[in-house]
Amino acid sequence: MRVDNRAHDELRPIIISRHFTKYAPGSVLVQTGNTRIICTAMVEESVPPHIKNTGEGWITAEYSLLPSSTPVRATRESTRGKVGGRTHEIQRFIGRSLRSVIDLALLKERTIWIDCDVIQADGGTRTAAITGSYVALMDAIQWLKGKDLIKENPVLNSIAAVSVGIVNGVALLDLCYAEDAAAQVDMNIVMTGDGKFIELQGTGEEYAFDDGQLAEMLSMAKKGIREIIEIQKTALEKTEYKN
Amino acid sequence: MRVDNRAHDELRPIIISRHFTKYAPGSVLVQTGNTRIICTAMVEESVPPHIKNTGEGWITAEYSLLPSSTPVRATRESTRGKVGGRTHEIQRFIGRSLRSVIDLALLKERTIWIDCDVIQADGGTRTAAITGSYVALMDAIQWLKGKDLIKENPVLNSIAAVSVGIVNGVALLDLCYAEDAAAQVDMNIVMTGDGKFIELQGTGEEYAFDDGQLAEMLSMAKKGIREIIEIQKTALEKTEYKN
Amino acid sequence: MRVDNRAHDELRPIIISRHFTKYAPGSVLVQTGNTRIICTAMVEESVPPHIKNTGEGWITAEYSLLPSSTPVRATRESTRGKVGGRTHEIQRFIGRSLRSVIDLALLKERTIWIDCDVIQADGGTRTAAITGSYVALMDAIQWLKGKDLIKENPVLNSIAAVSVGIVNGVALLDLCYAEDAAAQVDMNIVMTGDGKFIELQGTGEEYAFDDGQLAEMLSMAKKGIREIIEIQKTALEKTEYKN
Amino acid sequence: MRVDNRAHDELRPIIISRHFTKYAPGSVLVQTGNTRIICTAMVEESVPPHIKNTGEGWITAEYSLLPSSTPVRATRESTRGKVGGRTHEIQRFIGRSLRSVIDLALLKERTIWIDCDVIQADGGTRTAAITGSYVALMDAIQWLKGKDLIKENPVLNSIAAVSVGIVNGVALLDLCYAEDAAAQVDMNIVMTGDGKFIELQGTGEEYAFDDGQLAEMLSMAKKGIREIIEIQKTALEKTEYKN
Amino acid sequence: MRVDNRAHDELRPIIISRHFTKYAPGSVLVQTGNTRIICTAMVEESVPPHIKNTGEGWITAEYSLLPSSTPVRATRESTRGKVGGRTHEIQRFIGRSLRSVIDLALLKERTIWIDCDVIQADGGTRTAAITGSYVALMDAIQWLKGKDLIKENPVLNSIAAVSVGIVNGVALLDLCYAEDAAAQVDMNIVMTGDGKFIELQGTGEEYAFDDGQLAEMLSMAKKGIREIIEIQKTALEKTEYKN
Amino acid sequence: MRVDNRAHDELRPIIISRHFTKYAPGSVLVQTGNTRIICTAMVEESVPPHIKNTGEGWITAEYSLLPSSTPVRATRESTRGKVGGRTHEIQRFIGRSLRSVIDLALLKERTIWIDCDVIQADGGTRTAAITGSYVALMDAIQWLKGKDLIKENPVLNSIAAVSVGIVNGVALLDLCYAEDAAAQVDMNIVMTGDGKFIELQGTGEEYAFDDGQLAEMLSMAKKGIREIIEIQKTALEKTEYKN
Repeated sequence: MRVDNRAHDELRPIIISRHFTKYAPGSVLVQTGNTRIICTAMVEESVPPHIKNTGEGWITAEYSLLPSSTPVRATRESTRGKVGGRTHEIQRFIGRSLRSVIDLALLKERTIWIDCDVIQADGGTRTAAITGSYVALMDAIQWLKGKDLIKENPVLNSIAAVSVGIVNGVALLDLCYAEDAAAQVDMNIVMTGDGKFIELQGTGEEYAFDDGQLAEMLSMAKKGIREIIEIQKTALEKTEYKN
Repeated sequence: MRVDNRAHDELRPIIISRHFTKYAPGSVLVQTGNTRIICTAMVEESVPPHIKNTGEGWITAEYSLLPSSTPVRATRESTRGKVGGRTHEIQRFIGRSLRSVIDLALLKERTIWIDCDVIQADGGTRTAAITGSYVALMDAIQWLKGKDLIKENPVLNSIAAVSVGIVNGVALLDLCYAEDAAAQVDMNIVMTGDGKFIELQGTGEEYAFDDGQLAEMLSMAKKGIREIIEIQKTALEKTEYKN
Repeated sequence: MRVDNRAHDELRPIIISRHFTKYAPGSVLVQTGNTRIICTAMVEESVPPHIKNTGEGWITAEYSLLPSSTPVRATRESTRGKVGGRTHEIQRFIGRSLRSVIDLALLKERTIWIDCDVIQADGGTRTAAITGSYVALMDAIQWLKGKDLIKENPVLNSIAAVSVGIVNGVALLDLCYAEDAAAQVDMNIVMTGDGKFIELQGTGEEYAFDDGQLAEMLSMAKKGIREIIEIQKTALEKTEYKN
Repeated sequence: MRVDNRAHDELRPIIISRHFTKYAPGSVLVQTGNTRIICTAMVEESVPPHIKNTGEGWITAEYSLLPSSTPVRATRESTRGKVGGRTHEIQRFIGRSLRSVIDLALLKERTIWIDCDVIQADGGTRTAAITGSYVALMDAIQWLKGKDLIKENPVLNSIAAVSVGIVNGVALLDLCYAEDAAAQVDMNIVMTGDGKFIELQGTGEEYAFDDGQLAEMLSMAKKGIREIIEIQKTALEKTEYKN
Repeated sequence: MRVDNRAHDELRPIIISRHFTKYAPGSVLVQTGNTRIICTAMVEESVPPHIKNTGEGWITAEYSLLPSSTPVRATRESTRGKVGGRTHEIQRFIGRSLRSVIDLALLKERTIWIDCDVIQADGGTRTAAITGSYVALMDAIQWLKGKDLIKENPVLNSIAAVSVGIVNGVALLDLCYAEDAAAQVDMNIVMTGDGKFIELQGTGEEYAFDDGQLAEMLSMAKKGIREIIEIQKTALEKTEYKN
Repeated sequence: MRVDNRAHDELRPIIISRHFTKYAPGSVLVQTGNTRIICTAMVEESVPPHIKNTGEGWITAEYSLLPSSTPVRATRESTRGKVGGRTHEIQRFIGRSLRSVIDLALLKERTIWIDCDVIQADGGTRTAAITGSYVALMDAIQWLKGKDLIKENPVLNSIAAVSVGIVNGVALLDLCYAEDAAAQVDMNIVMTGDGKFIELQGTGEEYAFDDGQLAEMLSMAKKGIREIIEIQKTALEKTEYKN
């Protein structure tokens, strides 16, 4: 039995609210259970030095926990004066995943900034961030098209992410914080809408897992991703108007 | 005529939503027009070095703009590696104001952390932050009383803040961003529920103002503060239960 | 009775020594009682990025306490690796005040750096810094004129600053450190030579003040400012030659 | 055909030299092809704050590229003033992997510091770092036993790591830098001596991979890990005496 | 002929003013020609970690250029966020020199902080800083004795410093900035009152010097040091009273 | 008797291995006794701002201790977020020495980066770094000539460095760490192949030395430098080919 009575392969409820704030072309509040993240996509008409003059664009992501997003207050990284290892890792993970489904050449020499600000954390923030950011990214690209700044559609595929893990020897889908803290294996999986892997990060926490367990987790993840992709589609189909 | 058709001495609509997130004992979403700020109050059972062993408590505030809170993306201070001058100034302003209405000796040796995270900025963020934080602080103190951690009520007074200014030679209450950017004088005023000054910060922007203009701005501010104090009271009277 | 036997509305002795060091076009040692600050004005033939290509100039201020300027040694901010909140606030206060009396367009695309280095601190350093820096700024502008680098006089007004406060319920002018530490209200006021407000920052320290007290403090401040403006004038009239 | 004529599932030559320097209880020079890393293990008789008083020990890893380890000089992170995202990610990866095969309770309240300093980088530095650090860690634990500082053997399993990837649609084992730069999928795998997964990190570089490709890469990785485990064993069996 | 008409082995005029500021037990303004430095000595009743519990005291020095001390404004190290290489080197040089003439065991577990703030720089700041700091240190030790905090005299010797160099092939004593900038050899020498070496740092600037030149510079330095020691003695003999 | 039975004026064994790593044009492993340093020279086709457009080149050095190079693990400066005072001092010492024997105008507008990474430290690392870096620098210059990037030989002289000191009142050449820690005087000397001084840094550690002791140390240093110059020559004469 899970803490919230879900079946082993059952997702938490997911709510995707678009147009959450008014300045960013893409602005999404994504909720998966008690995890709540503001994901925005903003456009900057320049690119980082390493791709300058290549004609290509760039997508970069930043991730942050609000101090009040966790039961024990999280110290601001601005106060500590540096961005920590975990944050760096998550930012790279989100940026890399989103870049993999966009044709950067069609984006032209501009940067899309993805910001994922966690206002409440209950496990699975990095995968929820990808799920929500994809929707914000779609809105930003639509905005660029609406302004005729890009002509051809640069979107190669849809993308979503989910966590799976092994707790007390049992494979579970979409771990909440209490499950994650007790997990023997913690795996984050990013997949495309057509069922292929983009990223796969599995870690045994003082525990080693075998081929059978890997297969079971991958199967659960695929089921979860399929469901999330549907929820994203529904959210993007809604005709909403920004204030 | 103001950009949003308000009278010169008219506040923007204010909405105070308590229990906005679940971990912080006090968690408020405050909206004044398009300005939206999450204000939380969390308790830490220790105090900063400079008051250790005095038996007194402390209240400290941090303030941050989410990158997507402004039309042009605001660079994270964590990425820049340091907290900027404007942020420092606002944080000190908020903390000082809230400390002035709490008997820190009755709070005992613990710190209340106030976090003000701006998710949408349209002028008046520092005054809205004080207005919202006061409500979050009240909830945190109620929570401490409910746990019997404090016996006597440490709240000396209620507090609220508002901006006034002079735009094109005319005094205006509660400036939105467009007005603030054009203001000749920008003044932030913090007052208690019984009509006394806690803080008063007025700045001429390449402009000097005389006694008459000062008197007119102070009068408008008093009217605004009185109205905000009522809105805070109403919000705190609502019987709400946290999930 | 005040610690130094002054009347309630009496300034401490002020001495303004021009040409204190030899490299800066404006270099002033300002003393108000035991507070002693070196204020210099240096010219740089470029402007910060945010006003580049506007044709306008800029005035920026930096403020620092020498470690030995206070009874307990003040740690250097260079050693701590960052500029603290109080310093940021004072720097912004000085820069903003001086910019308000200069026509930046007539200054042309150059920066005047104001440096205020406190060698002895006994209260009122930020207001003394403005009083002294104004004189250093005048010398730097004279130097620019002498070199024909500016044609028209960019000085719109004279400016001076002073502190007022309430100690034991009594309004006092120009607080020394001992009074400042005990003050219930601490207010810094910047005014022009023709008696208008440029900046007004009043803070109740766990104390709220009413309209009557505000009026009394403002009246004292005006008297003080008038006297300081005279002392500045006298200092600037002296015919001195730099070595 | 691979750049160095290897078969698709062939490792580069691996040389493990123990006792490379004299102060660290474990000091290994590991070479895999042209990649060369100094991996050391040093003991500190204290633990980080988050596990203080738990009775458990800790293993932490740091990783650094010497400036001359890459064709274009790598700027020192000490000069830049901060540790970059890639470094953080690799350090966490190494530390986590090594902790997973050690019973930290048997290690007692002490820290083993693993330092991986890359003196020449030609792809696969993070996996080679784990392979070499495991040997250094074994020497440090032997040293602790020799000094009677630990009684029971805390080693739960052996561990090694290898990269696999897809280049031009073909799965390859142990990518050198030229292959890595062209890879469509890059996967790092850490496994135990008995064939279980500890960590598995696969990333499509603007490419998505399917189940069949995943299976082929995992199979190659297992073969590689088996061979590396043998090389580690041989290195540890050699009777060597430190000077 | 030298820029200021001095003989080759002639010092610039030296003025040592004690009790320059009021809080530091030792506070000296030292002037050598146009070089002017505030040297203070303050006492802290604790020691740095590396000598804690040894019963010994410590002397540490910090050095800083005021922004206006040089013809082109020097950026503050606090603004840059770090202390530069040259500053570190000078600080270590001053601290080491002063420690060499004090019996740190007799100082007991306390730190004397030496602060050297250059208000005008015209060459020779590091040697003038030692010369002035020695006097400030003597005053601080006298102050400690006056308060009965130390019983036995910890001063082992007097100390002074001077620069010598080779300009256009000619050896010169006490280089001003213009000479220093053109120097082929630049040497800083610290000696005791009884004519022994404490420190000797000579550097050829794209120039190598031979034994004869070394001997000539050492001889000039000895003459200069003897004269400076006399000036220090005279300054310390003056009966002055602090306000 | 010395700890390693050397005569007072005897060097430790020196081994210079060229072509130690493959990417840097100059790459040397220098060993003096137990001190081992990787010294590399890499070329960057740009120069630092302060000499841009002068047509001259630049040589700059960086120095670092690997954490495992010392008996007690040395904390990485990247982790501490700043480069310490000792490191700054050594880097400046190495760079300055090497620049003194190169005609920077003939080098043209490019930078040679010298990196000295200490993998084992047993005293004399800064002098060994100069000795080894000179050889790496020669290889880099040869490489530039081979590519026709410089036409005329910019090398003005050969250079080597050694330490001397006084331990228990006795002058010793080339101090190992145990001797250095006990030294009353510690002196580092850099000389050219034709016997002239480039740099001379002598420090009494709570000890003052007289003319006679200085003469004895200088004489020993000259002998040592002559021997090291021969070892460098032999190393550079060897015909070696890079892989």
